Amino acid sequence: MSQVIATYLLHDEKDLAKKAEGIALGLTVGSWTDLPLLEQEQLRKHKGVVVSVIPLEESERTNLYFGKRLKRGLVQIAYPSLNFSADLPAVLTTVFGKLSLDGTIKLIDLEFSDELKQQFPGPRFGIEGIREKLDVHDRPLLMSIFKGVIGRDLSYLSEQLKEQALGGVDLVKDDEILFENELTPFEKRIVAGKAALNDVYEKTGKKTLYAVNLTGKTFELKEKAKRAVELGADMLLFNVFAYGLDVLQGLREDDDISIPIMAHPAFSGAMTPSEFYGVGNPLLLGKLLRMAGADFSLFPSPYGSVALAKEEALGIADELTKEEPFKRTFPVPSAGIHPGLVPLLIHDFGIDSVINAGGGVHGHPDGAAGGGKAFRAAIDATLARRPLQVAVKENEPLQKAIALWGVHEVTV
Amino acid sequence: MSQVIATYLLHDEKDLAKKAEGIALGLTVGSWTDLPLLEQEQLRKHKGVVVSVIPLEESERTNLYFGKRLKRGLVQIAYPSLNFSADLPAVLTTVFGKLSLDGTIKLIDLEFSDELKQQFPGPRFGIEGIREKLDVHDRPLLMSIFKGVIGRDLSYLSEQLKEQALGGVDLVKDDEILFENELTPFEKRIVAGKAALNDVYEKTGKKTLYAVNLTGKTFELKEKAKRAVELGADMLLFNVFAYGLDVLQGLREDDDISIPIMAHPAFSGAMTPSEFYGVGNPLLLGKLLRMAGADFSLFPSPYGSVALAKEEALGIADELTKEEPFKRTFPVPSAGIHPGLVPLLIHDFGIDSVINAGGGVHGHPDGAAGGGKAFRAAIDATLARRPLQVAVKENEPLQKAIALWGVHEVTV
Repeated sequence: MSQVIATYLLHDEKDLAKKAEGIALGLTVGSWTDLPLLEQEQLRKHKGVVVSVIPLEESERTNLYFGKRLKRGLVQIAYPSLNFSADLPAVLTTVFGKLSLDGTIKLIDLEFSDELKQQFPGPRFGIEGIREKLDVHDRPLLMSIFKGVIGRDLSYLSEQLKEQALGGVDLVKDDEILFENELTPFEKRIVAGKAALNDVYEKTGKKTLYAVNLTGKTFELKEKAKRAVELGADMLLFNVFAYGLDVLQGLREDDDISIPIMAHPAFSGAMTPSEFYGVGNPLLLGKLLRMAGADFSLFPSPYGSVALAKEEALGIADELTKEEPFKRTFPVPSAGIHPGLVPLLIHDFGIDSVINAGGGVHGHPDGAAGGGKAFRAAIDATLARRPLQVAVKENEPLQKAIALWGVHEVTV
Repeated sequence: MSQVIATYLLHDEKDLAKKAEGIALGLTVGSWTDLPLLEQEQLRKHKGVVVSVIPLEESERTNLYFGKRLKRGLVQIAYPSLNFSADLPAVLTTVFGKLSLDGTIKLIDLEFSDELKQQFPGPRFGIEGIREKLDVHDRPLLMSIFKGVIGRDLSYLSEQLKEQALGGVDLVKDDEILFENELTPFEKRIVAGKAALNDVYEKTGKKTLYAVNLTGKTFELKEKAKRAVELGADMLLFNVFAYGLDVLQGLREDDDISIPIMAHPAFSGAMTPSEFYGVGNPLLLGKLLRMAGADFSLFPSPYGSVALAKEEALGIADELTKEEPFKRTFPVPSAGIHPGLVPLLIHDFGIDSVINAGGGVHGHPDGAAGGGKAFRAAIDATLARRPLQVAVKENEPLQKAIALWGVHEVTV
């Protein structure tokens, strides 16, 4: 039977199995035992079913915080697809609509049946498609981020873009807080960015793709994105959680918007960090972004000051890349990344990931171009199994980066 | 200067004022002190400003939970409107984009300058417009909710709708988990619902409005809503938080979608319940829903098992109805409501609110019609300042309701 199975982390004073049964009925057919047998027969295929209730150990810390003893457990409930249309708003409302307001409960995972999966698009390009665009197949991609661009004009942005591209980065993304503005409007950013990157390409032969921030009102996004495609934009950056997952999917499904989409995690932290409430990171920034069609998913790396627990970051990356009937989405662990972390990044996230840095590129003693070069050297050395401490001897930008930020070698 | 001032609740080991300064710069112009004076001059109008840092008492409970001593405080930061476009995704990304991922921080409030407010629509009808549609001006409205409709056919729904309307309710809303389905498709629900309510109107002279659940993919919603209007739909129910606030605004701003919109709080609990993270209820279910254009906002009442703290529920209602350059939105405190609570509801939420019940209507010994009548009698008695214990003597449905659910008289 086609269905979605939701996994919840539940904290409750009462019996978890009983609470689970209440959820399974309450979010599907309502009261059950009072129904005449004939109606039970008719409604059975719509009825939610408790799949499992796995008790977890009580947490003293949690009990102290809530001031009462709470049972903890993972509860799985299956919801028949018959009950909802095959779109994420319907799925989320079914499995965590009213329920999100009802007690101490966090949505950890959703397991979609194959039939349901077929009704979602997944990425248009995915890891392979992006690699083909760049003709880079055997290493993690390198991305850098614009810095301090609010209030700056087009020539400032163009120069910054060029400088980043000169360091050999594969991708540059807009600042996610750069919106429509007089100094650097969307369409002009695309055209100027293209010109700047063409200049670099002619000089170095290195292709760099620029993700322009798609912003504005929801119902104007498609026209704006199509205009971007017409103007030759490489990719779109999108603050999906300030809009809605289904808006991303709508952009992905429009064949006239035929460029990759990079999902930014802005505002997702309104839903994910609590131990007790909200939505799990691997589900939200991993599975659902991939199903909805993101080609890249940015998320906090486990290394910086804005950090995720390593388990969660790896969980996101796993959802983005594991075997599924969708193309794979590039994991982009971000924040706090410098060249000395490259061995660790590759150890943790593999080569099918994007190494993404802001300060770690721009803060290099030789500027952004030096930062890019240091990262590329660190990637090459790591893939050649050479310790960075050795590689620095032959690469000045890397040597300067390591002198500044240090190095985290990986001992396996 | 046009701006939005965000208020955050911050928990941090470090100095809150320093953290606040980092936010104000980091989310606007980036580094500042290193800039040449000329550039500082150029960028000053884009710079975020710390408005206030109000320390709160440390919480032992919180310190125990986090296993470290955390400073607590309310921090206000002003972001110049120059930095973002006048849409909620841009505002949310600016004030709580990356920041939502950065530490223990909750977005409590947003204070929009008048200039910014003018760029948002507010409700199309609002409290006065809805009252005119119903010709009910001097009492809270009464709403009831469909019950157990998944897997049921159109005649079942029509009968249930009629039964509810016969009790004298003003509004009936679809179940928010009823999506497009073969048995009761959207368009047929509208037509059948209209016919059922016309029958009742011819019999009783009482007008009842039916809110049909607008569901499906985001970029198909407008066409679907317009079709609903053509078919004579009274109102739309909308699971706004499964889509996005700006999607609601897009529906509100389309003049071809000229019927009231009722915002359901489904999935909002993924963002609101944590003390440490997410978004405050009065902001999300109050201020922002009103700005974006909801005519009704449903939220958990402070009385039931799915409950909000009273302060939060009242905070939402206050945001929906206080003096603003927008029409007022009907507060709809929901869940756990029965006729015996009417005096308390009117005491707490006033007459400009909607009394909304599911079980409290359907569970009445005389069925949904009896439930509606009991509520109407309770409302009349309360407004006439008669205790329900007295009113029951003249009203059998009310007497039966009070016998079943009890009464909460208000002593002032």
